[in-house]
Amino acid sequence: MIGRLNHVAIAVPDLDAAAALYRDTLGAKVGAPQDEPDHGVTVIFIELPNTKIELLHPLGEDSPINGFLAKNPSGGIHHICYEVDDIIAARDKLKASGARVLGTGEPKIGAHGKPVLFLHPKDFTGTLVELEQV
Amino acid sequence: MIGRLNHVAIAVPDLDAAAALYRDTLGAKVGAPQDEPDHGVTVIFIELPNTKIELLHPLGEDSPINGFLAKNPSGGIHHICYEVDDIIAARDKLKASGARVLGTGEPKIGAHGKPVLFLHPKDFTGTLVELEQV
Repeated sequence: MIGRLNHVAIAVPDLDAAAALYRDTLGAKVGAPQDEPDHGVTVIFIELPNTKIELLHPLGEDSPINGFLAKNPSGGIHHICYEVDDIIAARDKLKASGARVLGTGEPKIGAHGKPVLFLHPKDFTGTLVELEQV
Repeated sequence: MIGRLNHVAIAVPDLDAAAALYRDTLGAKVGAPQDEPDHGVTVIFIELPNTKIELLHPLGEDSPINGFLAKNPSGGIHHICYEVDDIIAARDKLKASGARVLGTGEPKIGAHGKPVLFLHPKDFTGTLVELEQV
């Protein structure tokens, strides 16, 4: 069911410092910041040859990243995103197997303009999993 | 400097259950367990079309994964591994920029039979980073 690893998301306390780290120290191709008000985050995508790293920084007081950064002040890996062909079919199969879908259970439009869903970390080895329909 | 994302490593409390989750529920291609006594882990690689997930489980009482699982009993993302062409050149550039290399600072042979090094999470946005020479 799952296809490519679309991205690994890393929550960071200082977006400029993290972008400089990946660009200057690690020599990667770092994009421009994009505000995603519907998700409460500002993101920067880092293009690797086979996948992307998504740097996440809180946008607004209700950002879902605030709690994570309170617990992990240096930042940390926040979620991984797998691609699926049909997000509704994937969701229904996962729910039938007992996995919990976060929020309303209906896909939202993600940072790439594609439908996304998040799955409960307790059902996926402690890992917050995003599914993105491509 | 960094190239492909070689793998994302997820520490898991129950290797069989995690393998079944990825194989049966998520429909991914799951390999056989491999003991890596030099690293204190048993690993299972999951082959995605563009990269790999490495499931990690402690092997032995001194496993470096024991502490992580004590703090994260459900499991969690443990590290990410970037490929580099020349691990000594990468290490020396990172050290010159002030980043800390874990352990002796000399590469060990990793789960793929290639030289690897680990970098200090505090210097990389709270993320444990492995470099693998390919």
